[in-house]
Amino acid sequence: MVYNFSAGPAMLPKPVLLRAQQELGDYQNSGMSVMEMSHRSSIYDNIHHQTKKLLKELMMIPDDYEILFLQGGASLQFTMVPLNLRQTGKVGYIDTGVWSKKAITEAKKLGNYVNILASSQDKSYQEIPPIPENFPDDLDYIHVTTNNTIEGTAYTKIPKTGKIPLVADMSSNILSNDYHVSDFDLIYAGAQKNIGPAGVTLVVIKKELLNRCSESVPSMMQYAIHAKNDSLYNTPPTYGIYMMSLVLEWLKDFGGQSAMLTYNQKKAALLYDYLDQSPMFSSPVKPSSRSLTNIPFVSTNADNDKKFIAYAEKQGLINLKGHRSVGGMRASLYNAMPLEGVQALIQALDTFEKEYNNQ
Amino acid sequence: MVYNFSAGPAMLPKPVLLRAQQELGDYQNSGMSVMEMSHRSSIYDNIHHQTKKLLKELMMIPDDYEILFLQGGASLQFTMVPLNLRQTGKVGYIDTGVWSKKAITEAKKLGNYVNILASSQDKSYQEIPPIPENFPDDLDYIHVTTNNTIEGTAYTKIPKTGKIPLVADMSSNILSNDYHVSDFDLIYAGAQKNIGPAGVTLVVIKKELLNRCSESVPSMMQYAIHAKNDSLYNTPPTYGIYMMSLVLEWLKDFGGQSAMLTYNQKKAALLYDYLDQSPMFSSPVKPSSRSLTNIPFVSTNADNDKKFIAYAEKQGLINLKGHRSVGGMRASLYNAMPLEGVQALIQALDTFEKEYNNQ
Repeated sequence: MVYNFSAGPAMLPKPVLLRAQQELGDYQNSGMSVMEMSHRSSIYDNIHHQTKKLLKELMMIPDDYEILFLQGGASLQFTMVPLNLRQTGKVGYIDTGVWSKKAITEAKKLGNYVNILASSQDKSYQEIPPIPENFPDDLDYIHVTTNNTIEGTAYTKIPKTGKIPLVADMSSNILSNDYHVSDFDLIYAGAQKNIGPAGVTLVVIKKELLNRCSESVPSMMQYAIHAKNDSLYNTPPTYGIYMMSLVLEWLKDFGGQSAMLTYNQKKAALLYDYLDQSPMFSSPVKPSSRSLTNIPFVSTNADNDKKFIAYAEKQGLINLKGHRSVGGMRASLYNAMPLEGVQALIQALDTFEKEYNNQ
Repeated sequence: MVYNFSAGPAMLPKPVLLRAQQELGDYQNSGMSVMEMSHRSSIYDNIHHQTKKLLKELMMIPDDYEILFLQGGASLQFTMVPLNLRQTGKVGYIDTGVWSKKAITEAKKLGNYVNILASSQDKSYQEIPPIPENFPDDLDYIHVTTNNTIEGTAYTKIPKTGKIPLVADMSSNILSNDYHVSDFDLIYAGAQKNIGPAGVTLVVIKKELLNRCSESVPSMMQYAIHAKNDSLYNTPPTYGIYMMSLVLEWLKDFGGQSAMLTYNQKKAALLYDYLDQSPMFSSPVKPSSRSLTNIPFVSTNADNDKKFIAYAEKQGLINLKGHRSVGGMRASLYNAMPLEGVQALIQALDTFEKEYNNQ
């Protein structure tokens, strides 16, 4: 048994993998694998629309939003968002770490004037910065990263941006929290953390934003073209979308987003409580900004970090190494990480700490 | 048993699907599915490099070419090619059908002057047009579509473009023919026809072309950035790359590209020979331009086309409907389509024809 704490691609629910395995060679007596199906066939069409239906239900997506399955991950969205929403060329970003910075860089490349509305750079990104109550009213949109995978912070309160569209990179906490789609105008997320395998990008966009884009933008970069073609403008990543449908069915059986939030809160609290009382391990993140899904932590020094990572690996607790930009350790506790995995991690931390204290 | 004649996504080799099924839940005793692996882990790294190694070997890719795994299909390459190769803003295209036209449209969108060097539009795209011996020498590149999935034509002789880089959309006949990589400067292909599932785009590019791109181009659109990061700039479609490695191993066991060419020639000849002698069914494509992988054909009228498609479906011969832009039927005989599938199709054509003649 292995518990995989990777920041993404990450663990998938065991029942999902079992079902995928059963159906791999012959999907529902079709004589075909889902990977072999024409994306224009009625059998694939059912999978495509079942996935959209489950997303609509589980995320409670209002009727005036479009659901798109794209490719290229959040990284391509960093370019697609400013390309599609451009009006004045002035855009607002809240800077909460490495991924926000990347999004800002790509917006600037397209010639936008980027207004940094708040930043926690001076706090080493160990918290979500205070958000202003008012914003300049000529911004094309305001962009937030709801959960910062590397720094381990997350928004608990979503900024109110009034008439300015609010855009969120939700890659690392989509469907693992209690956000409301109606508080955003555009949400995007790579699937490979909470909702499926790598290679599918989910975009949920308010329909009224679809007509902002100039026709001179490359076809593949226009949300409106993908929306008009029901995400079948070109061949979509069909197998990834199928896997997403299995994950969403599992989540529905689990009780949906609110049941998952309760479970994630329980898992995260266990680990934070342990870290907060430990003389050896600690969380660098401000308590009010702590992520439920990505929990970076450190020991007393880099040498012990290394030893602990090696020790944990021997117990089947893998991918605990922190991101190279922050060091230390990181435990990613996405939806598919069972409580038992967190308990096993705490057991390992505790044992390691006691052995260290006896040396 | 189903024979799937879809133009893509298409059939995958049965042994590949069996192995994928066996390994789905636990890849080589890692305790993980390939879908769950961090793209930065050594276990995934082995898969990534094994896939590159197999491509290099099977396609005989010279050392001065880079192999990239991207996303977005050929459709995104229509934009990436002109963005990355731009120098004068004058580009050359050979127009051989629907997909060439789409590539031309996207090049124009970026403000390029598109020189149509040859076209078979006046021949309803039922042949590859004669290729000029000389080209204007100020073109940034010349673009060809080596196989036209919809129209059923393919190049047998690759144009000589001298110092002008030759770019090829090889989506529908990559590794199913005997092309030489060294005759091209940039090859791209969506995986979902001959080499894997939908969601991976293969790019093979001459290294000297990598430094043409301006730094102001969005990072995800720069070949140089993907090359520098070994296709790990962002999370790649890891499972699709793994599936590609299984398909390539199968192809290697089969005897590689030349053995596959012989097999594909045999399959295609069987069907063309049948069509050429049939009083009821025929190929609209000029014999010297006929594709080995996509074979459109028609019966005496649209009503019989419809009846035959329904009849064939009952025999487990599916996805034979022609593309909506040309009508009729189309049999896609990619690498994974066994000879027995073509024999079954001919049997069905023959039986249908005889029944029709007896009415």
